[in-house]
Amino acid sequence: MTGRTDPLLSHAELEAALREIGATRYHSLHPFQTLLQEGRLTRAQVQAWALNRYYYQSNIPVKDAIILARLGTVELRREWRQRILDHDGSETERGGIEKWIALTDGVGLDRDYVMSGKGILAGTRFAVDAYVHFVRDRTLLEAIASSLTELFSPNVIGVRTRGMLAHYDFISAETLAYFDKRPVQAKRDSDFALNYCLEHADTREKQEAVMDALRFKCQVLWAQLDALYFSYVEPALTPPDAWRPGEADAGREAR
Amino acid sequence: MTGRTDPLLSHAELEAALREIGATRYHSLHPFQTLLQEGRLTRAQVQAWALNRYYYQSNIPVKDAIILARLGTVELRREWRQRILDHDGSETERGGIEKWIALTDGVGLDRDYVMSGKGILAGTRFAVDAYVHFVRDRTLLEAIASSLTELFSPNVIGVRTRGMLAHYDFISAETLAYFDKRPVQAKRDSDFALNYCLEHADTREKQEAVMDALRFKCQVLWAQLDALYFSYVEPALTPPDAWRPGEADAGREAR
Repeated sequence: MTGRTDPLLSHAELEAALREIGATRYHSLHPFQTLLQEGRLTRAQVQAWALNRYYYQSNIPVKDAIILARLGTVELRREWRQRILDHDGSETERGGIEKWIALTDGVGLDRDYVMSGKGILAGTRFAVDAYVHFVRDRTLLEAIASSLTELFSPNVIGVRTRGMLAHYDFISAETLAYFDKRPVQAKRDSDFALNYCLEHADTREKQEAVMDALRFKCQVLWAQLDALYFSYVEPALTPPDAWRPGEADAGREAR
Repeated sequence: MTGRTDPLLSHAELEAALREIGATRYHSLHPFQTLLQEGRLTRAQVQAWALNRYYYQSNIPVKDAIILARLGTVELRREWRQRILDHDGSETERGGIEKWIALTDGVGLDRDYVMSGKGILAGTRFAVDAYVHFVRDRTLLEAIASSLTELFSPNVIGVRTRGMLAHYDFISAETLAYFDKRPVQAKRDSDFALNYCLEHADTREKQEAVMDALRFKCQVLWAQLDALYFSYVEPALTPPDAWRPGEADAGREAR
């Protein structure tokens, strides 16, 4: 167990500690993720995942805009704004949110329903909102550190995409286009954020705060899958205001 | 389905609609609650419930202080401040938080650990924090309406207390003293809040906002039990940073 009064860690030690947090807490370890990539979910359960995760995706540029407003220098903002471009896209290039809508289209959910945010689980909303509040209320260093889960996503995305394509006949490569560019973007973004944290966490207390911020973010991702598992897998007790299988179903042919 | 453009409801109709929300969404319907009051939980699972709910209890005066600051009149503040007195107590009378500590003492949890907030589930923290943010960020009417779950608690408390006393040999009447006064307090508080909402929701849009606020609060309570169920009942997958059975255990004799 490490503590705030221990000696300063070297950059290599801090990076190793952060990677250890990912190795033990990243949501790739969650049973819902395992079921998803091994083809053991029904189409309705995959729809529930896509619907709920849209709320997370659609709040990413919100949290990045809050960070952008706090960065304080032209140079840092130039780096960070790319994340917003990636998610919001442009007239000539689809952004991540639009690609996620293509995913929810692809699994047969009504687009207006998805974008309305209706039917998402309370656990999804509380976790995502906690992330937005975190980057607003904590130190800038902690806000940046909370993005470090992207250190762990490139590898997971490949496993998930291959698994979903192999196992679900209702999933196409086009449906999963969101994930095509994410590994390269995530590596670029997390390299920057990691270097920022290594440079700016110049006391042991700040280093511990960086680790705690990453643990928090792992919880944000994990709690979303807890909610999906409880409501749609086991005991599969879907609360009254949440989406139900068959609801807002645009049909498999409807795009 | 009702909507914001429908005609204004009478007071009786709005009250009936609010009671219907409780009848379908209050956490007394959650499987964890059923297991708890039917004596089907282990001591460790009851400890997990007591530990996590402490975080909720300890934030009640926080959310009430935020509302207090927003009420705007001497008369309203005089009514509302009683809630804070009830939870924080005085030199001569134990408050609700102190009684909850007696409950966690009674089930054998270390007091300092409980009060530190360490080991609570992410789902607990996200749900409770969402409640605190809600009463800060929404309209005063919505903030007050979110307390209306107390309309439904008096009856549930009796069932739960009798069930727990009958089924668990590690639970005594003293351990559950928290619940002794809650039915009377909750009735007084919810009568006031209900009348406030009936009076001040003078458009259909505000009436719908009151109903939505109560649905939200039901989700806050429900999501906490989802998190407990997932992490300690089924699949009982306890995340790395959460409390584990045996941890911080003061022993059954230690009071």
